[in-house]
Amino acid sequence: MVEVQDIDIKTAFGEERLGWTGYVEWEQYPEKKALASKVLKANKFTPIPEFQFVPIPKTNPVLIGHRWKEYHNVLGLQGIVDFSWETVQREKPDLIHLLDFPYNGETRREQIMEGKITDNNVRNHGGVPDINEDVFELEIAGLVNKPVKISLKDLKDPTKFPQSEVTVTLQCSGTRRIEQINEYPGDGDELINAPWGEGAIGTAVYRGVPLKKVLKLACGGVLPECEHLEFIGADTYFKKNNVFNYAVSAPLRKVRASSGTEVLLAWEMNGKPLPKMHGAPLRVVVAGYIGARSCKWVYKINALKEPSMGPVQRQEYLYFTPQIGKQNAKYSNGFPIGNMPVSSAIIFPLDKQTIVHSGKITMQGWAYSGGGNWVQRVEGRCGTAVEEEDMTTKYYHAWRLWKIDLPVDAEGWLELCVRTWDSSNNTEPTFVRSAWNWDLHVTSSAHRIKVYSINTSRPATAKRLQELEEHGQGIHTQSLSYPAEFTLEPEAEYLEQYRKFPREPAC
Amino acid sequence: MVEVQDIDIKTAFGEERLGWTGYVEWEQYPEKKALASKVLKANKFTPIPEFQFVPIPKTNPVLIGHRWKEYHNVLGLQGIVDFSWETVQREKPDLIHLLDFPYNGETRREQIMEGKITDNNVRNHGGVPDINEDVFELEIAGLVNKPVKISLKDLKDPTKFPQSEVTVTLQCSGTRRIEQINEYPGDGDELINAPWGEGAIGTAVYRGVPLKKVLKLACGGVLPECEHLEFIGADTYFKKNNVFNYAVSAPLRKVRASSGTEVLLAWEMNGKPLPKMHGAPLRVVVAGYIGARSCKWVYKINALKEPSMGPVQRQEYLYFTPQIGKQNAKYSNGFPIGNMPVSSAIIFPLDKQTIVHSGKITMQGWAYSGGGNWVQRVEGRCGTAVEEEDMTTKYYHAWRLWKIDLPVDAEGWLELCVRTWDSSNNTEPTFVRSAWNWDLHVTSSAHRIKVYSINTSRPATAKRLQELEEHGQGIHTQSLSYPAEFTLEPEAEYLEQYRKFPREPAC
Repeated sequence: MVEVQDIDIKTAFGEERLGWTGYVEWEQYPEKKALASKVLKANKFTPIPEFQFVPIPKTNPVLIGHRWKEYHNVLGLQGIVDFSWETVQREKPDLIHLLDFPYNGETRREQIMEGKITDNNVRNHGGVPDINEDVFELEIAGLVNKPVKISLKDLKDPTKFPQSEVTVTLQCSGTRRIEQINEYPGDGDELINAPWGEGAIGTAVYRGVPLKKVLKLACGGVLPECEHLEFIGADTYFKKNNVFNYAVSAPLRKVRASSGTEVLLAWEMNGKPLPKMHGAPLRVVVAGYIGARSCKWVYKINALKEPSMGPVQRQEYLYFTPQIGKQNAKYSNGFPIGNMPVSSAIIFPLDKQTIVHSGKITMQGWAYSGGGNWVQRVEGRCGTAVEEEDMTTKYYHAWRLWKIDLPVDAEGWLELCVRTWDSSNNTEPTFVRSAWNWDLHVTSSAHRIKVYSINTSRPATAKRLQELEEHGQGIHTQSLSYPAEFTLEPEAEYLEQYRKFPREPAC
Repeated sequence: MVEVQDIDIKTAFGEERLGWTGYVEWEQYPEKKALASKVLKANKFTPIPEFQFVPIPKTNPVLIGHRWKEYHNVLGLQGIVDFSWETVQREKPDLIHLLDFPYNGETRREQIMEGKITDNNVRNHGGVPDINEDVFELEIAGLVNKPVKISLKDLKDPTKFPQSEVTVTLQCSGTRRIEQINEYPGDGDELINAPWGEGAIGTAVYRGVPLKKVLKLACGGVLPECEHLEFIGADTYFKKNNVFNYAVSAPLRKVRASSGTEVLLAWEMNGKPLPKMHGAPLRVVVAGYIGARSCKWVYKINALKEPSMGPVQRQEYLYFTPQIGKQNAKYSNGFPIGNMPVSSAIIFPLDKQTIVHSGKITMQGWAYSGGGNWVQRVEGRCGTAVEEEDMTTKYYHAWRLWKIDLPVDAEGWLELCVRTWDSSNNTEPTFVRSAWNWDLHVTSSAHRIKVYSINTSRPATAKRLQELEEHGQGIHTQSLSYPAEFTLEPEAEYLEQYRKFPREPAC
């Protein structure tokens, strides 16, 4: 039996595949997995961050991924950590960095609304692999007629495999999780729960080949027992002191659907080569599903009878009903998250924003439904529908951006709310608490924000704003709570009012 | 004209009244007020704390009253600040100290529920005066037939004035303000808004003489024009660089009501001499009203035609409807806060508490209504009424403590709620936002807390609790979010479940 102190960490977990730098294939090497487990068990790591009990810092990166960095470090894989952060800086410097490692980054609000397409947000589960495309091969094994290895060059050759382009929204199941965190201070017990907001979603045009075609043309089809296709990624995944390659699956039924464009092997995004952050040289794009199924850096596909038994899908991306939690959660009583339900978000105005207007507030955001449903109707405050012309084009698998001018007469704190219906007439739960779940996935309730309305079409308000301005205390130069140094009402005016309308009845 | 640099601060604001140490009478001396204003205007002070935008510290004292200390300091009145804190330490060491100066302290939850009477919570607006009782006199002036000065000795002589005892709840209008702070990050612009919780309320038996009797026996009654009685306290009050003695008033109609016990001049509390913190040697107790009208350290009473023009009542304790705020608030468009509306609070369990139970959760708290209304009915979660025998005795002017065992089958996050009806059939607003107001006064909505329910009468839960215990990870030893280091479900069990109830339909 190998003792931990005898392991030469520097050489123990070397590259097994041609063209991989600093990356490890685990799944073919049970002895390496066992050795890594032994090393992990022999070490102590920084406890998980309990940021859900304290305010989230305003730093960027917001959270530091101490624990996963340490996991890599004790296995001699510090190079992965360094390369990942270098790649973020090179490819995506302007995101909101929610967690530096494994990298989680959210699109800035302005960028979300710039156009219908955005390639920004990123949720990774491990380091960013450094893979040489020229020697890269995709392996297909398991319940297929002919197991094969296909070079990336062949895969990209349109004379060998017919190519497709699809417009797809990929959504993290953690989108808008911050609302669930704020609702209750407790949390699921298996996750690095990045405190995502409304920007953990993105839409892009992907180019690649349908997996359906590859299975048929390269492997001569699947065996009759095959019901699921498992995707294995080059990134290393950690769970309870065990190591894995990232692994998830999609049902054969979905791979085969219509023209096969629901499950694509993609190398191009918005007309450009896929960035490393997004899975280069090759990624899976599973349309309509949770982003986590769209495996990045895919190097192997297994045709299986049952869904992937990897921890990502079986143990982590589970949706628990509100009665299940620390006291009774099991892997088998959570619902695996595949198709995403209808959801939406207000991007502008910002939550808690003070809005000075003269009777109308413009609200904009996104609306999306998974599973091939498209967005049918978006409702602003009090049921006012967004006009069709104020929504972007319909796609089977992508969001619609929307915009609405809400008539607002009232002043003070108001709730703005958006609610969406999809093409199956699904609509969103009313409140966050209506569908709070232990693992804090899928925050799809009607999105609500609070804004402070100041309506300058009211004369008393216009007058006060002018007074504040004259005293250098304009609404936007200080917080609302900053005291006015001048008197709000001269004594004579007050007395005039008091005597005209006394506080108490006369008799 | 006196220049600020020529003022000898050490002697400028001396004691004017016999037996007052370090305290200033301002109201008789306009030249002193003008001088103090000049000094205040010539100085810069620490800005108001914007704690409503950041988490409230867990320290005790919670907040430090920098600004009001500095006001006293520049006027050479540092001795007041020091004496006040010494008095807190001597008389009330075990409160939750919300603000050290002017002192604001909240009763601890255990003490609230210990008995029906508690003399604990304190909300002061200035320093605690150090007054020699032996030479103390109460002055009565204004619209009375005969202005008088009465020694405390005479006032306490039962052969001169008939005495009364009343059981009264005094409630700060800031009780449960923390809920309004948490609802919106904005704030009123005129206040040191102490972040009060459910303990800013107390009930005591006061002994003293009805003001009605004193006016009649000592002053020969009031003049026909008199409609309000103003109370002036020895503490110094600051507002926009001006100084005042604390001043508030009550309507003559209330002073005269029934036997006169609604407005008492009191020197005894719960059978003991009134503590200095609570207003010794003499205070007013205005039953059914906001605590702020029960003037402490009262040394003068003015019979007036109109209510007090002092800033406490006219500019500070105002209730604004939700459409009024920074942009349009005036002193004349707020409602002065007198009688307190019906309200209640859950004291146990605590908000966000994890409760391990076997089917019942015990909830307890207080319920109160001002203006001579008493508490008629208290409702726990889902409308279950508290039984009459589980509420304390009815009084015209005091709270009822209550207790209820709620049947709880569900697990996970639950909302517990209390709602009260008073004898006029007033009941509480549904949500905090239903009656949010700019100055954050009077948080009287149905009180809601979140608890995490773990029901051990469910076998799966009992089993998991035992497993957690065996791994040294009992529910109460770590936060709910602490990951279980053991697997939640062995692979064999998971597969058995999966094969019995597959995730996908067969066809």
